Amino acid sequence: MNYAVHINVMPLKELLDPQGKAVLSGLGNLGLKGVEDVRIGKHITLQIEAGSESEAKKIAEEASKKLLANPVMEYFEISVN
Amino acid sequence: MNYAVHINVMPLKELLDPQGKAVLSGLGNLGLKGVEDVRIGKHITLQIEAGSESEAKKIAEEASKKLLANPVMEYFEISVN
Repeated sequence: MNYAVHINVMPLKELLDPQGKAVLSGLGNLGLKGVEDVRIGKHITLQIEAGSESEAKKIAEEASKKLLANPVMEYFEISVN
Repeated sequence: MNYAVHINVMPLKELLDPQGKAVLSGLGNLGLKGVEDVRIGKHITLQIEAGSESEAKKIAEEASKKLLANPVMEYFEISVN
Protein backbone atom coordinates (compact mmCIF):
# COMPACT_ATOMS: atom_id res chain seq x y z
CA MET A 1 0.00 0.00 0.00
CA ASN A 2 1.00 3.58 -0.52
CA TYR A 3 1.46 5.80 2.53
CA ALA A 4 1.97 9.54 2.76
CA VAL A 5 4.46 10.08 5.55
CA HIS A 6 5.04 13.59 6.90
CA ILE A 7 8.30 14.55 8.55
CA ASN A 8 9.00 17.81 10.34
CA VAL A 9 12.66 18.62 10.79
CA MET A 10 13.06 21.51 13.24
CA PRO A 11 16.02 23.30 14.83
CA LEU A 12 16.69 22.05 18.39
CA LYS A 13 14.90 24.15 21.00
CA GLU A 14 18.20 25.02 22.72
CA LEU A 15 19.56 26.59 19.56
CA LEU A 16 18.99 30.04 18.12
CA ASP A 17 17.00 30.08 14.88
CA PRO A 18 18.23 33.12 12.92
CA GLN A 19 15.76 32.54 10.07
CA GLY A 20 12.90 32.50 12.57
CA LYS A 21 14.17 35.68 14.23
CA ALA A 22 14.34 37.41 10.83
CA VAL A 23 10.75 36.41 10.05
CA LEU A 24 9.63 37.57 13.52
CA SER A 25 11.08 41.01 12.94
CA GLY A 26 9.66 41.04 9.39
CA LEU A 27 6.17 40.35 10.74
CA GLY A 28 6.62 43.21 13.21
CA ASN A 29 7.61 45.54 10.38
CA LEU A 30 4.47 44.51 8.49
CA GLY A 31 2.40 45.60 11.48
CA LEU A 32 1.23 42.13 12.44
CA LYS A 33 0.65 41.98 16.19
CA GLY A 34 0.49 38.99 18.52
CA VAL A 35 3.30 36.82 17.16
CA GLU A 36 5.81 36.20 19.94
CA ASP A 37 8.12 33.58 18.52
CA VAL A 38 8.85 31.98 15.17
CA ARG A 39 10.81 28.83 14.45
CA ILE A 40 11.39 27.55 10.95
CA GLY A 41 12.28 24.07 9.82
CA LYS A 42 11.57 21.70 6.97
CA HIS A 43 8.41 19.82 6.13
CA ILE A 44 9.03 16.71 4.05
CA THR A 45 6.37 14.49 2.51
CA LEU A 46 7.39 10.99 1.47
CA GLN A 47 5.23 8.70 -0.65
CA ILE A 48 6.21 5.26 0.60
CA GLU A 49 5.19 1.88 -0.79
CA ALA A 50 5.16 -0.50 2.16
CA GLY A 51 3.33 -3.48 3.59
CA SER A 52 2.07 -1.71 6.69
CA GLU A 53 1.92 1.69 8.34
CA SER A 54 4.61 0.77 10.86
CA GLU A 55 6.90 -0.39 8.06
CA ALA A 56 6.39 2.93 6.24
CA LYS A 57 7.18 4.78 9.46
CA LYS A 58 10.35 2.73 9.92
CA ILE A 59 11.53 3.63 6.41
CA ALA A 60 10.83 7.32 7.08
CA GLU A 61 12.73 7.13 10.36
CA GLU A 62 15.73 5.61 8.62
CA ALA A 63 15.58 8.28 5.90
CA SER A 64 15.45 11.01 8.55
CA LYS A 65 18.42 9.62 10.45
CA LYS A 66 20.55 8.94 7.42
CA LEU A 67 19.82 11.95 5.25
CA LEU A 68 17.09 14.40 6.22
CA ALA A 69 17.99 15.61 9.71
CA ASN A 70 21.29 16.68 11.21
CA PRO A 71 21.09 15.48 14.84
CA VAL A 72 23.63 18.07 15.98
CA MET A 73 21.25 20.89 15.13
CA GLU A 74 17.84 19.37 14.41
CA TYR A 75 15.21 16.95 15.67
CA PHE A 76 12.47 15.29 13.64
CA GLU A 77 8.86 14.18 14.10
CA ILE A 78 7.13 11.64 11.89
CA SER A 79 3.42 11.19 11.25
CA VAL A 80 1.65 8.85 8.85
CA ASN A 81 -1.74 9.43 7.27
CA MET B 1 -3.88 32.91 25.65
CA ASN B 2 -0.84 31.57 23.92
CA TYR B 3 -1.33 29.34 20.89
CA ALA B 4 1.20 27.26 18.96
CA VAL B 5 0.23 27.56 15.32
CA HIS B 6 1.84 25.27 12.76
CA ILE B 7 2.14 26.26 9.12
CA ASN B 8 3.32 24.03 6.29
CA VAL B 9 4.43 25.86 3.18
CA MET B 10 4.80 23.41 0.29
CA PRO B 11 5.64 23.72 -3.40
CA LEU B 12 2.49 23.59 -5.57
CA LYS B 13 1.69 20.07 -6.77
CA GLU B 14 1.89 21.15 -10.42
CA LEU B 15 5.49 22.30 -10.01
CA LEU B 16 8.68 20.32 -10.04
CA ASP B 17 10.45 20.16 -6.70
CA PRO B 18 14.18 19.88 -7.49
CA GLN B 19 15.15 19.63 -3.82
CA GLY B 20 12.73 16.74 -3.38
CA LYS B 21 14.06 15.00 -6.48
CA ALA B 22 17.62 15.35 -5.16
CA VAL B 23 16.62 13.79 -1.84
CA LEU B 24 14.76 10.99 -3.64
CA SER B 25 17.85 10.06 -5.60
CA GLY B 26 19.98 10.44 -2.45
CA LEU B 27 17.76 7.96 -0.61
CA GLY B 28 18.11 5.55 -3.53
CA ASN B 29 21.90 5.85 -3.36
CA LEU B 30 21.76 5.05 0.36
CA GLY B 31 19.95 1.82 -0.47
CA LEU B 32 16.63 2.82 1.07
CA LYS B 33 13.81 1.07 -0.77
CA GLY B 34 10.11 1.94 -0.97
CA VAL B 35 10.24 5.73 -1.22
CA GLU B 36 8.49 6.78 -4.44
CA ASP B 37 8.23 10.52 -4.15
CA VAL B 38 9.62 13.30 -1.98
CA ARG B 39 8.44 16.88 -1.67
CA ILE B 40 10.13 19.40 0.56
CA GLY B 41 8.73 22.60 1.97
CA LYS B 42 8.92 24.67 5.14
CA HIS B 43 7.45 23.99 8.54
CA ILE B 44 6.89 27.14 10.57
CA THR B 45 5.81 27.29 14.19
CA LEU B 46 4.38 30.56 15.47
CA GLN B 47 3.76 31.32 19.14
CA ILE B 48 0.78 33.65 19.01
CA GLU B 49 -0.82 35.58 21.86
CA ALA B 50 -4.49 35.92 20.96
CA GLY B 51 -7.95 35.97 22.48
CA SER B 52 -9.17 32.83 20.76
CA GLU B 53 -8.03 29.97 18.57
CA SER B 54 -9.76 31.43 15.51
CA GLU B 55 -8.08 34.80 16.08
CA ALA B 56 -4.68 33.08 16.29
CA LYS B 57 -5.45 31.22 13.07
CA LYS B 58 -6.39 34.48 11.37
CA ILE B 59 -3.10 36.08 12.37
CA ALA B 60 -1.21 33.05 11.04
CA GLU B 61 -3.14 33.23 7.78
CA GLU B 62 -2.27 36.88 7.35
CA ALA B 63 1.39 36.16 8.11
CA SER B 64 1.40 33.35 5.52
CA LYS B 65 -0.17 35.51 2.84
CA LYS B 66 1.98 38.57 3.49
CA LEU B 67 5.35 37.02 4.18
CA LEU B 68 5.73 33.27 4.54
CA ALA B 69 4.36 31.80 1.32
CA ASN B 70 4.84 32.82 -2.29
CA PRO B 71 1.47 32.02 -3.95
CA VAL B 72 3.07 31.72 -7.38
CA MET B 73 5.03 28.66 -6.28
CA GLU B 74 3.69 27.56 -2.91
CA TYR B 75 0.54 26.78 -0.94
CA PHE B 76 0.14 26.71 2.82
CA GLU B 77 -1.80 24.74 5.44
CA ILE B 78 -2.43 25.98 8.98
CA SER B 79 -3.16 23.98 12.10
CA VAL B 80 -3.53 25.15 15.69
CA ASN B 81 -2.85 23.11 18.82
